[in-house]
Amino acid sequence: MTMDDKLKPLRQQIDAIDTQILALLNQRARVAQEVGHVKAETNAPVFRPEREAQVLRSVAERNPGPMLSPDVQTVFREIMSACRALEKRVTVAYLGPAGTFSEQAVYQQFGQAVDGMPCASIDEVFRATEAGTADFGVVPIENSSEGVINRTLDLLLQTTMIISGEVSLAVNHSLMTRVGSMDGVRVICAHSQALAQCQLWLNQNHPGIERRAVASNAEAARMASEDPTVAAIASEIAGQKYNLQIVKAHVQDDPHNRTRFAVIGRLVTAASGKDQTSLVLSVPNKAGAVHNLLAPLAKHGVSMTRFESRPARMGKWEYYFYVDVEGHQMDSKVADALAELKDNAAFFKVLGSYPSSL
Amino acid sequence: MTMDDKLKPLRQQIDAIDTQILALLNQRARVAQEVGHVKAETNAPVFRPEREAQVLRSVAERNPGPMLSPDVQTVFREIMSACRALEKRVTVAYLGPAGTFSEQAVYQQFGQAVDGMPCASIDEVFRATEAGTADFGVVPIENSSEGVINRTLDLLLQTTMIISGEVSLAVNHSLMTRVGSMDGVRVICAHSQALAQCQLWLNQNHPGIERRAVASNAEAARMASEDPTVAAIASEIAGQKYNLQIVKAHVQDDPHNRTRFAVIGRLVTAASGKDQTSLVLSVPNKAGAVHNLLAPLAKHGVSMTRFESRPARMGKWEYYFYVDVEGHQMDSKVADALAELKDNAAFFKVLGSYPSSL
Repeated sequence: MTMDDKLKPLRQQIDAIDTQILALLNQRARVAQEVGHVKAETNAPVFRPEREAQVLRSVAERNPGPMLSPDVQTVFREIMSACRALEKRVTVAYLGPAGTFSEQAVYQQFGQAVDGMPCASIDEVFRATEAGTADFGVVPIENSSEGVINRTLDLLLQTTMIISGEVSLAVNHSLMTRVGSMDGVRVICAHSQALAQCQLWLNQNHPGIERRAVASNAEAARMASEDPTVAAIASEIAGQKYNLQIVKAHVQDDPHNRTRFAVIGRLVTAASGKDQTSLVLSVPNKAGAVHNLLAPLAKHGVSMTRFESRPARMGKWEYYFYVDVEGHQMDSKVADALAELKDNAAFFKVLGSYPSSL
Repeated sequence: MTMDDKLKPLRQQIDAIDTQILALLNQRARVAQEVGHVKAETNAPVFRPEREAQVLRSVAERNPGPMLSPDVQTVFREIMSACRALEKRVTVAYLGPAGTFSEQAVYQQFGQAVDGMPCASIDEVFRATEAGTADFGVVPIENSSEGVINRTLDLLLQTTMIISGEVSLAVNHSLMTRVGSMDGVRVICAHSQALAQCQLWLNQNHPGIERRAVASNAEAARMASEDPTVAAIASEIAGQKYNLQIVKAHVQDDPHNRTRFAVIGRLVTAASGKDQTSLVLSVPNKAGAVHNLLAPLAKHGVSMTRFESRPARMGKWEYYFYVDVEGHQMDSKVADALAELKDNAAFFKVLGSYPSSL
């Protein structure tokens, strides 16, 4: 029996399965249309991140294999995106240009059946979302090469938009120079965070070369483009911008380096069962103030997963604290902790509760 | 009855459908594993572009709706990718960095369940594929802003790799300057092809400003970055590279501007029912030679969909002709035409037959 003879019945089985899947997809799409009609009566939102997060978790938990759970989730993300597009195709503003990580973050959250709207700046993403030109906005909030994105944090402080989701994408650092070799290089520049992330690799491979922390990886790339004795650690995109050549790709010690994006919009997201809540707080700058401020979290057993302090650019407080906690603001213990936090804080804003990224 | 009361039974229906889809996905995955075992006996290729193209066309043709056919195809692309990953996860080299259009082209062809390998140059993509480090390579072959990608054409001439697929992605042109306005701008620069593509828009919006064709859109962007009297038409990626601000996005007259990519590898692709074949030809440069060369195509009723002439950089022929024809090289009329073409030509190479892009 030839290979084709053996494959033929298997392919027929696959075709029969595909016919059933196709029928089910359209059956699902019809129910989604009914959901759309019900929602339209009360102007309820088409995109429900908590519901989609639940579906994605559920299919991964119930997945018997052999298909891998992340791949099952990719398929279901696209199924939900296609069904949602029948209710209404959502428009999502993001930091352009198209064809970059930000656009990938849009697809990661919404699937591919959306209208992406590339914007020239983070400010413009906020404006488009606030004006309603876009239903949602996707903005970088933190990346492992530059730390937090200050402009996003500043705008979150002022906006009336709410964070309704979070996306995290893998990113890589590369060692780059003008000519693609380390000949004549006397110093390796990068943001301190990036240098720290590549420490083991640098110790093993270039123990003798001085390392210098600079303002950002992009600045390191610019310096390397002007000086052949400088090597930069930066993203390949930054390297391309400054015409650098790669000496060695993926030099970070942790292969799972990630960039985080926030999804902003009008939408108040209900609890999905595994959520987090983002806050901004401020207190007058005196000894012990921060410690006292955060005491209600510990008291109510709420875990803090992220804490960033930023000097205030305006207003009367010296520092703003960006805090992520586990749980939804409607969970009773989180609600209790937030109520006490609010009493203690001079400034208190909940940026949003949303499903933890998968 | 509240909205949630109305939605509850619908969501239960969706959950029941999802359970069936999940079961079918894994049933399909198990059959795909059997396919993998059969193929392994003879070392047959895991990725069969003609088979995947047939499945994608078939589901679109049979799709009763309401789910839109392009969205159905996106879902099935991911299903096939996830099943293929169980046979073997293919590695695909592409022109990096990650997070760009080239990476999107990889996903467009292979779905997301692949290992992408970003390369620093088109040469490196060919090398990685030829060396077998990658199973396939994805290289840009033509874009609507710069025309053909010369380096890819040169390398296709020499490589032992075969074209096994084609991907086309939408791209947009934007009008950009240093400051984001047209104040003081005296000339709009771009590649002649891009100027032509934006002609109507320019006539309506900036009829009085001189247009100047330059070597490439990237060159136009560089010029605009150095001279406030110059505006550039280019991709937003080029604009970002040179720190330009967008005056107006998406100024091309045809909103369906596209960039084409070739998928290269060892794989000889069988006929899918809707295919095309890429060739390179050469003849001594004398009057009527090209017309005579191409006569067999007309004689056998084979349509030519693309014709590019390129001056030879090496070898004895003055020009190489890159020709795409409709049909697979195993189709009898194409085979007859190619046999005659080969007799007439001084140089003749079939780059590959592969499914026409969807």
